Amino acid sequence: MPNPTAAMLVIGDEILSGRTRDANMHYLAGELTKVGIDLCEVRIVSDNRPAIVSALNDLRAAFDYVVTSGGIGPTHDDITADCIAEAFGVNIDVRDDARALLQAHYDRQGSELNAARLRMARIPDGAALIENPVSVAPGFTIGNVHVMAGVPMVFQAMVASVLPTLTGGAPLLSQTLKIQRGEGDIAGPLGELAKEFDDLQIGSYPFQKDGVYGANIVVRGTDNGRVSAAMTKLAGLFPA
Amino acid sequence: MPNPTAAMLVIGDEILSGRTRDANMHYLAGELTKVGIDLCEVRIVSDNRPAIVSALNDLRAAFDYVVTSGGIGPTHDDITADCIAEAFGVNIDVRDDARALLQAHYDRQGSELNAARLRMARIPDGAALIENPVSVAPGFTIGNVHVMAGVPMVFQAMVASVLPTLTGGAPLLSQTLKIQRGEGDIAGPLGELAKEFDDLQIGSYPFQKDGVYGANIVVRGTDNGRVSAAMTKLAGLFPA
Repeated sequence: MPNPTAAMLVIGDEILSGRTRDANMHYLAGELTKVGIDLCEVRIVSDNRPAIVSALNDLRAAFDYVVTSGGIGPTHDDITADCIAEAFGVNIDVRDDARALLQAHYDRQGSELNAARLRMARIPDGAALIENPVSVAPGFTIGNVHVMAGVPMVFQAMVASVLPTLTGGAPLLSQTLKIQRGEGDIAGPLGELAKEFDDLQIGSYPFQKDGVYGANIVVRGTDNGRVSAAMTKLAGLFPA
Repeated sequence: MPNPTAAMLVIGDEILSGRTRDANMHYLAGELTKVGIDLCEVRIVSDNRPAIVSALNDLRAAFDYVVTSGGIGPTHDDITADCIAEAFGVNIDVRDDARALLQAHYDRQGSELNAARLRMARIPDGAALIENPVSVAPGFTIGNVHVMAGVPMVFQAMVASVLPTLTGGAPLLSQTLKIQRGEGDIAGPLGELAKEFDDLQIGSYPFQKDGVYGANIVVRGTDNGRVSAAMTKLAGLFPA
């Protein structure tokens, strides 16, 4: 049975402008791989309502799970929750359980639950809250879409809350062989190997270091015996 | 006049599996911002023909420029050039000028231009070559799509070849103020400021460090005077 599929939607001008280098995508990719969910596509869009709604509707129709990151804070540029509600065609308003979480948190801090902070209690109808053990303001799940914060520490905590609730598949195993020869020298035999082991993914990732060409050959699959068999044959084809 | 728009299509299983952290997107984002081209969307798809073709056709219709990275090497998993040809509905075959570049290169190296390496001379009909001063195998431009290698050093060299040929806009200027207060405390006045300066983009990027909440407020725009005016007002609203 093929593994469940997932997509990620990253919302944020700061990545598209080059100001910030995204960290959440790389983190999520690793976590999903561990539990046998195939991350098949990532889209990064700007803080633009039609762009977010359209991307979300594409992805939630095409994949089993969608994870979003970013845009659920208290400031004027945090429009993700509203876009999700629009994409699902549901209302969004302050919800009592989310408000209670925030109220208790800010009471403890001695801060005021002002209008801006209250925006973080706006949850689309029908969604379930995602716990935020770092800074309390919750994410939420609606349909197959999991809406999480962009701050990496919070994002990672929310992934940890949600991941055990998802149905995974067979974890993808991978082994890597580093070959100190140019891809052009190894491509022929490698292609033959890929045909022979067509139940595995065999990828070639070239590098160049100090003027020397090489490639990391990565063999991926869910059956450890097959992955090992392919690696043994690969190592025989290209002895160090 | 609004700036020209761009999208990037990253092709590569190695990023979606979490094995590699993408570097090209962050690089391209910064370079485009410098020349006044707005990077509006990035998609990362796996080495899967229908996924690549579909994403490419979406992006080239929606944006002024599209840059792709990855999948143009000599190995069996390098399918980008074929996908581009399919998306444009044109033929693809080994082209004489590309073959001549490779032949000269491998002659100098004393290597053979074998069948695998010759794949890198396969260019869709009607495309123009993009120079590769690092490892010779060219990228290509077809329509508004610029097809580049995934190896960061080569990608960057190809961006440098192509960027001067694109029509840019007014470079986006940005100034940042770091505020050591939670977003919830600053969101109200910040929202008012964003309304007053609605010709600028004002983004709030929260952080948490050593248990202290804060936010970087980034003001972006093409008019230096306006950006500075907004920053002055911002600094007055939230004195250090």
